[in-house]
Amino acid sequence: MARSKEFNEEEALDKAMEIFWKQGYEKTSIQDLVDQMGIHRRSLYDTFGDKHSLFVQTLERYESLVAAQIRKQITEEMTTVESIRKIFELAVYSDSTYPKGCLMVNTAVELSLLDDEVSQRIKTAFKQTENLIADLLIRGQARGEVASSFDINELARYIHNALIGVRVLVKMTANPKEFDSTIDMTLSILKND
Amino acid sequence: MARSKEFNEEEALDKAMEIFWKQGYEKTSIQDLVDQMGIHRRSLYDTFGDKHSLFVQTLERYESLVAAQIRKQITEEMTTVESIRKIFELAVYSDSTYPKGCLMVNTAVELSLLDDEVSQRIKTAFKQTENLIADLLIRGQARGEVASSFDINELARYIHNALIGVRVLVKMTANPKEFDSTIDMTLSILKND
Repeated sequence: MARSKEFNEEEALDKAMEIFWKQGYEKTSIQDLVDQMGIHRRSLYDTFGDKHSLFVQTLERYESLVAAQIRKQITEEMTTVESIRKIFELAVYSDSTYPKGCLMVNTAVELSLLDDEVSQRIKTAFKQTENLIADLLIRGQARGEVASSFDINELARYIHNALIGVRVLVKMTANPKEFDSTIDMTLSILKND
Repeated sequence: MARSKEFNEEEALDKAMEIFWKQGYEKTSIQDLVDQMGIHRRSLYDTFGDKHSLFVQTLERYESLVAAQIRKQITEEMTTVESIRKIFELAVYSDSTYPKGCLMVNTAVELSLLDDEVSQRIKTAFKQTENLIADLLIRGQARGEVASSFDINELARYIHNALIGVRVLVKMTANPKEFDSTIDMTLSILKND
């Protein structure tokens, strides 16, 4: 009979995610991970593979957490501006039990030029966010909340670019209220013709 | 008589800057620096101090290089949109002899939560860029090129936020033309009333 695992895999993965999120891929050692996850080195390797493989699993976990959060926050009744504002607010007012900033953006900056596998994953994740924004904008055009003259892909890219800016600057801004006017201005163009 | 240095300090500093720029602070070892700078380990310590001290010196070098580039590109005759567009273009169409992306933004993401000294420096550098943009906007309001209803600080913060987005996304975008519409849209609000 196989011995049952002495740790909860999901909890351990969350803890690994947090330390990578806080201090990046390179700075995080296997010893940091063992300490933070509270499991034996051997269990870490057996369950998650090497550091790179564990890191990729934390990226996947992060993506699904963020996607679930967004799905929970956005409802059919919200206007386009309200919906997209929610996505910005999730970046600005993040759960204070987690590190500031965004694991995806951190990873994009740290590893884009150094790690092809990770770079491809981040590109895909960014594209998914852009597509989600594009879907909201298409609905917005149908409802007359977004000017019909816009190219949806360009508009989604513009909004996603601002979102990336926020996800970086939130790491160095003490007062989240500072982002209000930036978000307002970013979304103010939606009605332009 | 003191023996003359066998290397050019500025060139060596540039080489250190490039490797930090490409692979970040944490991943760069003293051995990487020795190899890249082509100087002896002992000379590195004697001239630049430890890795952290050398890193801070490369940040200062980077700041002055970027500031000089901007000063060279922006003239009194340019419109507000043309001037600010130049700042974006410097981020998008960077000299291909240098790594993609921005050392300041990379460092903001990598070290903001981990290194107070560096974090303060980056905040100051970001503030300087925001102030430069604010100066251009004030001139723009005086010339009637920027709507007078805008709060200049908020507008500068909005533009700087988009610039940060570009400085991240340029690391993962093969075609710089993709940024054209984002920059156009970002600057399109200047005339709004």
